[in-house]
Amino acid sequence: MLFGALEAGGTKMVVAIGDGNGKILDRKSIPTTTPEETMPLIEEYFREWNQNKDHEIKALGVACFGPIDLDRNSDTYGYITSTPKTAWKNYNIVGELKDKLGIPVGFDTDVNGSLLGEATWGCARGLTDAIYLTIGTGIGGGVMSNGKLLHGMLHPELGHIRIGKLSSDPGECVCPYHKDCFEGLAAGPSIEKRWGKKGVELKDEAKVWELEAEYIGIALTDFVMTLSPQKIILGGGVMHQEQLFPMIRQAFEKYNAGYINADRLKYLDEYIVPASLNDDQGIMGAIKLAIDELDYQSHIGL
Amino acid sequence: MLFGALEAGGTKMVVAIGDGNGKILDRKSIPTTTPEETMPLIEEYFREWNQNKDHEIKALGVACFGPIDLDRNSDTYGYITSTPKTAWKNYNIVGELKDKLGIPVGFDTDVNGSLLGEATWGCARGLTDAIYLTIGTGIGGGVMSNGKLLHGMLHPELGHIRIGKLSSDPGECVCPYHKDCFEGLAAGPSIEKRWGKKGVELKDEAKVWELEAEYIGIALTDFVMTLSPQKIILGGGVMHQEQLFPMIRQAFEKYNAGYINADRLKYLDEYIVPASLNDDQGIMGAIKLAIDELDYQSHIGL
Repeated sequence: MLFGALEAGGTKMVVAIGDGNGKILDRKSIPTTTPEETMPLIEEYFREWNQNKDHEIKALGVACFGPIDLDRNSDTYGYITSTPKTAWKNYNIVGELKDKLGIPVGFDTDVNGSLLGEATWGCARGLTDAIYLTIGTGIGGGVMSNGKLLHGMLHPELGHIRIGKLSSDPGECVCPYHKDCFEGLAAGPSIEKRWGKKGVELKDEAKVWELEAEYIGIALTDFVMTLSPQKIILGGGVMHQEQLFPMIRQAFEKYNAGYINADRLKYLDEYIVPASLNDDQGIMGAIKLAIDELDYQSHIGL
Repeated sequence: MLFGALEAGGTKMVVAIGDGNGKILDRKSIPTTTPEETMPLIEEYFREWNQNKDHEIKALGVACFGPIDLDRNSDTYGYITSTPKTAWKNYNIVGELKDKLGIPVGFDTDVNGSLLGEATWGCARGLTDAIYLTIGTGIGGGVMSNGKLLHGMLHPELGHIRIGKLSSDPGECVCPYHKDCFEGLAAGPSIEKRWGKKGVELKDEAKVWELEAEYIGIALTDFVMTLSPQKIILGGGVMHQEQLFPMIRQAFEKYNAGYINADRLKYLDEYIVPASLNDDQGIMGAIKLAIDELDYQSHIGL
């Protein structure tokens, strides 16, 4: 059985066809402009596949930039809600796709999608509680808790915890909402504003990554205190600076200060890890969202 | 059917008998000294009940001070682990009770117990994601996530997130592990150290509670960003200062700064609330732990 996958990002939409084992058979990238321009191209991709191939896709999974409405009881379930990308604000992306393709559509955040990919076919397999954190132009996190993706009231916003500016920091928090939050102090734009250059041009500047590792270490400590994950997966542009991993593990130890004392923390290089699916975790997670939605529909259909 | 309940605290042990509706039929308080002195009194209470009453208790639930080992696959499952109460350090409380009483014993943290009580018979009924926070001599939190109590790697330690000392704070963090954590800045001992008197003697000092509400508001904002609860329940000695509730809601609004925009946040007096079960939430939660353990045992027995 085949499934459609859409990884919906602010700059590009990745569409793909996958099988029940997460294998990607075909994929294409479409620029994200406006719903009027972008959505017909997405729909055409899946419609063409279903017209020309022996094996039609039976469901579609969408891992979407946010914030989005994930509450199935809400009138605006399946909408992109208060995004700064104004063309997509209050846009019913799930309704549109269901309408035009006539198949079940699974839906979750982009970061929950990536985590689901890792939990199904990657380094978080077999775990019940895990975090996928992306650190790039923004900071977002997906959370699995008690074996299921965490939504709760809305969905986690791991980038906006308060972490407190360090006295060694010559910069400032750039978040328009918060004075001391993780994203505002540690995402790409704050690095660029603080040091006057983009992160990729600062690779050899030790002080840049020392401070960055401190902030990430503080945040991970807070996530261990609140979400108690069995593993923390770090992805996103900033994490391409691979020298950060050992520094982050060291900062985590410093800020945990021996307080949480669990077996898994004895092996931090297996606890705080890079994504394991060659940057396919998001699109593979979207395949799993499609599989799960088909399963969900058949259960409520009983 | 009847159930035994034990709310195990650092100063007293509350034992009780309850029915399947959470009704408490009998209860007794026993001082917490050492396992050698305290445990026989607990066991005697339940043994006597079973010898003298028509309806024996079929299982026991224990809501216990921590840290504790909740991992059923661990060699030390059911132990109190690295507590500063040295007589109870590495003590196998579940093993002892099972051994002496010969009935199934459910086990969780004291704060998860209180949350379970509220989720079963109190103000969190019907919710899938909620937090119970106790603010007293320490700060601890129970978390329900996706309909189940959250354990993950260990269990949450909500009192030890970093919240960052405010510049208006004349005191300091008193946590021996952390320089800027919630418990170290906002639990009873930090209030006493900062202002030179216990909280109960400071009721009319506005500045005391303004600062306290700020810290609690910051912490709740972080919990909303990470755990996305549908409700936050506040208990513990400090929360007997009821004037704090409106101040905390206001501080939460200040620190969230409109970032998380969910329907439930429009009604903060229903979102950030006091415990609803007349301080019986812990012991009622222990009854539910007993009920759930009996259910669990009968399932794995299939």
